[in-house]
Amino acid sequence: MKVYLDCYPCFFHQALNAARMIGADEDTIHKILLEVNKILPEIPREATPPEIGRQVYRIVSRWTGIKDPYQESKKRCTAQALTLYPEMKERVRSADDPLETAIRVAIAGNVIDFGSNTEFDMIDDLQSILRQAFAIDHYDAFRSTLGKAKDILYIADNAGETVFDRVLIEELKKPVTYVVREQPIINDAVREDAVAAGLDKVANIISSGADSPGNILGLCSGEFFKAYESADLIISKGQGNYEGLSEENRPIFFLLKAKCPVISRHIGVQKGSIVLMGSRYF
Amino acid sequence: MKVYLDCYPCFFHQALNAARMIGADEDTIHKILLEVNKILPEIPREATPPEIGRQVYRIVSRWTGIKDPYQESKKRCTAQALTLYPEMKERVRSADDPLETAIRVAIAGNVIDFGSNTEFDMIDDLQSILRQAFAIDHYDAFRSTLGKAKDILYIADNAGETVFDRVLIEELKKPVTYVVREQPIINDAVREDAVAAGLDKVANIISSGADSPGNILGLCSGEFFKAYESADLIISKGQGNYEGLSEENRPIFFLLKAKCPVISRHIGVQKGSIVLMGSRYF
Repeated sequence: MKVYLDCYPCFFHQALNAARMIGADEDTIHKILLEVNKILPEIPREATPPEIGRQVYRIVSRWTGIKDPYQESKKRCTAQALTLYPEMKERVRSADDPLETAIRVAIAGNVIDFGSNTEFDMIDDLQSILRQAFAIDHYDAFRSTLGKAKDILYIADNAGETVFDRVLIEELKKPVTYVVREQPIINDAVREDAVAAGLDKVANIISSGADSPGNILGLCSGEFFKAYESADLIISKGQGNYEGLSEENRPIFFLLKAKCPVISRHIGVQKGSIVLMGSRYF
Repeated sequence: MKVYLDCYPCFFHQALNAARMIGADEDTIHKILLEVNKILPEIPREATPPEIGRQVYRIVSRWTGIKDPYQESKKRCTAQALTLYPEMKERVRSADDPLETAIRVAIAGNVIDFGSNTEFDMIDDLQSILRQAFAIDHYDAFRSTLGKAKDILYIADNAGETVFDRVLIEELKKPVTYVVREQPIINDAVREDAVAAGLDKVANIISSGADSPGNILGLCSGEFFKAYESADLIISKGQGNYEGLSEENRPIFFLLKAKCPVISRHIGVQKGSIVLMGSRYF
């Protein structure tokens, strides 16, 4: 998916939010915004939002000297998500269709606000997402692709959400390669976050080789490409990976909640929808 | 109130919304955004948001060739608001405190979405605003200032809202000068909009001399200044006028709904609050 004009204000929002999260002073934030300002006229028509997002966060890191502003927040999210793990496993175990429920659990990980501090609230959120209708539901195609698949690639999104991915991976009952970012970017999962969520027990963890908030193939490593080309089922979590992979002709299923109006329009669903959607390969 | 860093993304949003409203093509919008981008590094520290907003809308006008994109929309809002006029008059007439109710009616004009197309919906909105508690309530000071006032200046905000202003002006029972913008800017009221709402029957309409979306004293005419300096009660409607006048040491009362997070923080209220607030003069 290409950068839309509606993304321009959003790049400023992202820079502001990250800089404020770090506690940067207003002078520093001003300098950061002026530098974001400089990159906008140079955005090529074929750029995807994560490519520009990556540049925006690099500017924030450079001016604040902080490489991983979300480190503590990511640890907290993972710890909170782990408290829900037994509850999620029980939901899947007792479901009429455990695979379908595990997919919903994985999407719930993309939705739940781990900032809400009681386990009770999070269970409540989980429950409502398990009931929400899919706006696009390619479950039958997913199940049939999974049935034939020998080699599954699972491209991760945020830390914390990783625990929910684990529940789905355990239900796939096939060998899975789990892809994390090479370097910290926003609250996206890196290897450390995946291990903290126990993914090393259920999948082979590799890095994409990239540090963009979303999977940009042009930035990925040879190791990633080998796994990407050979996989016969690719699961892509979240909006950022969709932005990078939406035009790909590979057997990808996108699992996400459409939180951004531009992505919602691109997919053709209402903002707030949950989606299990096969790529144009199918 | 000065421009905050949080206003930067908002200037892009405003340009996007105005250009899309006109039906500009994506190439033109792209050019507009790049020109908005150019003015950001030059924003002086002491600038107020309406000063920059004015520049943003000028860019949109220049690229699209359309000077008054909101003309039709303003006419429709005024016509819709006029259908509510008898209902508003009846509410004020039957109220325990007609002046306080008329103030609420005037704020309701700043809140109601005239896009909602049934009279029934608008009456519903009006009713709920008449019940909403003020987050800041300087009604006693307002009433006492009004009691002594000989010369009232009322600075208007949007078209449509003008009809609601008329209800309050009729309740003030004193001579009122009603200030509109000199030139069209967003959906702000110009003389034509005020006359369409019947303000010429209850007030002396003058123009501020300016075309900024909010009253910027530096841009105002001599006629405005004379009225501004001699008034012993000034009523300032809406956020844009607050942005321009918040630091002024004149007998101003701000009537507004805090819709923007930056203005809400500046005033010290929750977003969504309604406010009747005296200036630092009091």
